[in-house]
Amino acid sequence: MVNQRADIGWQSSKSDSSGVSNSGESSKESSRCSTPVLDADRTDRLRDKMKRRIESGDRWFSLEFFPPRTAPGAVNLISRFDRMGSGGPLFIDVTWHPAGDPGSDKETSSMMIASTAVNYCGLESVLHLTCCNQTKEKITAHLNKAKRLGLKNIMALRGDPIGKDWVEEDGGFNYATDLVKHIRCEFDDYFDICVAGYPTGHPEAESYEDDLRHLKEKVDAGAHFIITQLFFRAETFLKFVKDCRAIGITCPILPGIFPIQFESPLFAQGYHSLRQLVKLSKLEVPEEIMQVIEPIKDNDAAIRNYGIQQAVEMCKVLLASGEVPGLHFYTLNREVATMEVLRQLGLWAEDPRRPLPWAVSAHPKRKVEDVRPIFWASRPKSYIYRTQDWDDFPNGRWGNSSSPAFGELTDYYLFYLKSKSPKEALLQMWGEELMNEESVYEVFTNYITSQTNRNGHKVMCLPWNDDPLAPETNLLKDELEKVNRRGVLTINSQPNINGKPSSDPIVGWGPAGGYVFQKAYLEFFTSSENVTALLQVLKKYEPRVNYHIVNVQGRNTTNAHDMQPNAVTWGIFPGREIIQPTVVDPVSFMYWKDEAFALWIEQWAKLYEDESPSRMIIQYIHDNYFLVNLVDNDFPLDSCLWQVIEDMFTLLDSPPETQKD
Amino acid sequence: MVNQRADIGWQSSKSDSSGVSNSGESSKESSRCSTPVLDADRTDRLRDKMKRRIESGDRWFSLEFFPPRTAPGAVNLISRFDRMGSGGPLFIDVTWHPAGDPGSDKETSSMMIASTAVNYCGLESVLHLTCCNQTKEKITAHLNKAKRLGLKNIMALRGDPIGKDWVEEDGGFNYATDLVKHIRCEFDDYFDICVAGYPTGHPEAESYEDDLRHLKEKVDAGAHFIITQLFFRAETFLKFVKDCRAIGITCPILPGIFPIQFESPLFAQGYHSLRQLVKLSKLEVPEEIMQVIEPIKDNDAAIRNYGIQQAVEMCKVLLASGEVPGLHFYTLNREVATMEVLRQLGLWAEDPRRPLPWAVSAHPKRKVEDVRPIFWASRPKSYIYRTQDWDDFPNGRWGNSSSPAFGELTDYYLFYLKSKSPKEALLQMWGEELMNEESVYEVFTNYITSQTNRNGHKVMCLPWNDDPLAPETNLLKDELEKVNRRGVLTINSQPNINGKPSSDPIVGWGPAGGYVFQKAYLEFFTSSENVTALLQVLKKYEPRVNYHIVNVQGRNTTNAHDMQPNAVTWGIFPGREIIQPTVVDPVSFMYWKDEAFALWIEQWAKLYEDESPSRMIIQYIHDNYFLVNLVDNDFPLDSCLWQVIEDMFTLLDSPPETQKD
Repeated sequence: MVNQRADIGWQSSKSDSSGVSNSGESSKESSRCSTPVLDADRTDRLRDKMKRRIESGDRWFSLEFFPPRTAPGAVNLISRFDRMGSGGPLFIDVTWHPAGDPGSDKETSSMMIASTAVNYCGLESVLHLTCCNQTKEKITAHLNKAKRLGLKNIMALRGDPIGKDWVEEDGGFNYATDLVKHIRCEFDDYFDICVAGYPTGHPEAESYEDDLRHLKEKVDAGAHFIITQLFFRAETFLKFVKDCRAIGITCPILPGIFPIQFESPLFAQGYHSLRQLVKLSKLEVPEEIMQVIEPIKDNDAAIRNYGIQQAVEMCKVLLASGEVPGLHFYTLNREVATMEVLRQLGLWAEDPRRPLPWAVSAHPKRKVEDVRPIFWASRPKSYIYRTQDWDDFPNGRWGNSSSPAFGELTDYYLFYLKSKSPKEALLQMWGEELMNEESVYEVFTNYITSQTNRNGHKVMCLPWNDDPLAPETNLLKDELEKVNRRGVLTINSQPNINGKPSSDPIVGWGPAGGYVFQKAYLEFFTSSENVTALLQVLKKYEPRVNYHIVNVQGRNTTNAHDMQPNAVTWGIFPGREIIQPTVVDPVSFMYWKDEAFALWIEQWAKLYEDESPSRMIIQYIHDNYFLVNLVDNDFPLDSCLWQVIEDMFTLLDSPPETQKD
Repeated sequence: MVNQRADIGWQSSKSDSSGVSNSGESSKESSRCSTPVLDADRTDRLRDKMKRRIESGDRWFSLEFFPPRTAPGAVNLISRFDRMGSGGPLFIDVTWHPAGDPGSDKETSSMMIASTAVNYCGLESVLHLTCCNQTKEKITAHLNKAKRLGLKNIMALRGDPIGKDWVEEDGGFNYATDLVKHIRCEFDDYFDICVAGYPTGHPEAESYEDDLRHLKEKVDAGAHFIITQLFFRAETFLKFVKDCRAIGITCPILPGIFPIQFESPLFAQGYHSLRQLVKLSKLEVPEEIMQVIEPIKDNDAAIRNYGIQQAVEMCKVLLASGEVPGLHFYTLNREVATMEVLRQLGLWAEDPRRPLPWAVSAHPKRKVEDVRPIFWASRPKSYIYRTQDWDDFPNGRWGNSSSPAFGELTDYYLFYLKSKSPKEALLQMWGEELMNEESVYEVFTNYITSQTNRNGHKVMCLPWNDDPLAPETNLLKDELEKVNRRGVLTINSQPNINGKPSSDPIVGWGPAGGYVFQKAYLEFFTSSENVTALLQVLKKYEPRVNYHIVNVQGRNTTNAHDMQPNAVTWGIFPGREIIQPTVVDPVSFMYWKDEAFALWIEQWAKLYEDESPSRMIIQYIHDNYFLVNLVDNDFPLDSCLWQVIEDMFTLLDSPPETQKD
């Protein structure tokens, strides 16, 4: 009559429904659930995520990228990770290019790109690894490095010889199977392993059947799932799956989807290179496709539209077959076609539920992290970089962080912190020549309003914000414009929120059925004259408003406790402890202060010649302005922070004798 | 222009205003503030608390008690600690009675009474210790034990010889000064030390001046403050303070106040014993007092009223003098006179601000504790007892508790868990003879309604609640009555609260300027028939309602995560992280379940003869009923828990075929 255990009712969405296995895992790790485990996707291994989705019937997609050739290319690819990551891929994978020093620390290496995807973009990532032309020791070193960087998944490939035919190597590997065995032997169960499948047989295989047997060997050696080479007909893949199942391959098999397009690097010579590629890969482009392409071969847009349509139709057949749990896309580092296919299939998550208000890093060490200082809200990659050496991450209460030291941020050209805009574009946005401090106020104001500046350029970013205003900040647009115009140069803010549903499209985050809250927050640079008046005004707002006011030398004026953080964002959810993901922390504010002031010089002043008036204006602001943050603790009431600023201006405008009292 | 540090504005009440010194102390302990430090009173040493209050001008009071002679006397005294503790004493002190085995583990020993006050009643406590007739080793052993029990303050006294004149002892101490030196020598700065002052000179001292010099020696040896012997004229004390200051005694000097009363143990023979006491203590009862007392000496009430009036007037003079930071009361274990004096002086905190919704233990090990399971809400002393061996206490997040094991609770006669009511009273309340299960429902219902039962007795307590309904539970009275009448036997509940001010007289807690929240909670015993219907009904309330349903064998049916606690009380305060002081924790619920079921037998069934029908009824309930807890996660809406129960009854009342679907 009474069941030992009823449904896991607190997990409302299908994809979250296997809390049992998840809780089983955590109980192995410790006797208590010491982490919020906001969603299992954050802590599960890739194979478990697949398993859960297969069980629940939720389809997924994944995206393949190759490493860029240049540092600016890397900056662009990381932005693409952020944009395509927002569509909700189950994982991305990064190919291994033996010619490109793939295991090095170069910002363009396969290793570093995959690591960046995990650590800075929060994407579950699979690193390709080929064994061709490499010693066992070298392979082991690569794997150790991958592990150290937080990578947990490897696509084990033989790889192609460089410029010559395959030669067996002593002390090396000859087949992907050997690599799979090696990974399992040296790293036990640590990595999830993927292997390649060839729906029409590997080009070098003796026969289709022979290739299937090799695939079975790879899986038996310890691979967890298969991604196939691209193909152009659903039935090709479905027959392949049937044949795999027939010989006892039971793991997930993901179809490799390639929406036909020409304007990708692989198709530099357009239509003709498609013929070339097809020939090399022993791929048969079906006659019906060739017949459509031939007449439009010089029209890139038409080709792409056809490629999208063809991919969508094939994917629909695949998904309808019931044999396909997820689709793997060969993006060729392009966005448009893949995103369009996914949108038409209904797989692109336009507004994926955020587990926390900030993007969670996918590094396994950070899986418990659920509190961060608000200061880095617009520079999360910098925060991740500066805390990468922490042993523990705060969980539940900021004060519990056992590693408060922030790493130095001396190299402002760190590639994942670099502005997406080149110097010329920055000068167009921020001014080729500054006349005075007011020119700077204008830049801030134009950024807020998204209006073009006097030279006709939109200000799309600021040194502290590499992206346009967040939708949430947009709620404060009018007020922000007003104060920036008068020299209250805002770099971070949030409205107060008194219990909106966690599903709210703008401010919502966390599991379904919850409520989110915020205290109003405002952070800005302003002149010392303004600060004098502000301090006078703030007396009236005790104890409602907490403030920190600091200049570049670090003189900190505050009415807050020295060590006590102030929670400014929190959420209440069914069946959970409270989550408070952002705090105003007095200690880390002093680290942020250094970074915030340095950005004036590193990102802005240095655009101009030494000793130039423009540079001296920025230098003056850097040397003389204060960085201020304000929290209105009374979150159920309308924010009083605008009134605080208004009062400051009123005091400044009043006759001197009034200012004394 | 800009000050290094402005006012500590987030601390709103005067007595909290020295956050600087507090934060200074915590920064010595660690580089981060890892505890909520809800108020400095919780973590500061007694001497620091005094210092802060002296600086802020806030007056305090303290209360002296002597250990009881009998175990029932101890139970009564502990209740008195709870009642008098609610008035907000800065500390209490417990006298040392050499004849009563004061350092033993007996429940009536000075040591155990002081320990209980600290650990179970959350009172800052001073343990008296006399050195007369004791070896150094014995003294050290007492001090070590006191330290182990969480005591941090010692009143160092010479003490009086037992039944004979003072004889100097080898290897012992002859003066309180020696004891002070010994404590500082052996325990460095661990203990705060108090010594006695004699406003009219010690009865055995050579002279008043000689006695003052001795006092100076005691202070110089390391005492932190002085409490004086009682006196009857303000000027006696004020002259004493002046003389102390003149010879360089700078520490706080607290006047010992004794509101004259006869019905105390010391005055068993009334008026005549006052003369005796006065003679022994070399106290001069002023002529004007004697003149008033003489005519009313046979009227206890009149004497007490006079004593109150006399004490109030004297205290007013003392407080007005500016020399008196706090008043020390010789309560003689009586409540009425002291409380009345304090009320008239405006020092009695009728509604002291609660730092947390539950009473905080004063044991230094527990100072960071700020989360507890809701289950022990009415049995906090049991919770403290069962977790006394924990090394860490949860701080911020329940899951962080590193010591989840609860101690066994086998001895239900543990004196601080014993019911205040004797067996006869319990039988009158709970029924000399039970007819059936409905008789039990009636007891629960009468407890809720505070109505007299059919034998004319009010049900003032239940095995799970030793006190009448809390004001907060009273908010739910009508609903509770309705469901108890039908066999939903509630033992714990709280209403939902959506952001009431922290100053709310009923549900408020924590620092000023905050907001408190609750999820509705209901916990009850009910029959297995009811549980069957309830489980059917609960399906409709997924995922809004979380439940745990368990019988005495421990079969747990739940829709909650195995390990994830559900926060059901939390508060948001200016300049702080979120506090979530109560959770529904699945793991500790299983420990509570054992205790909750055992109370049926230990506290109720055992009132009746073996094999008696009454006993068998309770035994049947114990064996067959389920313990259920329900949480309504949707705290901003009206609680749906009553509707859940209503639906359960509706289903039970409907024809059998309807029940199936």
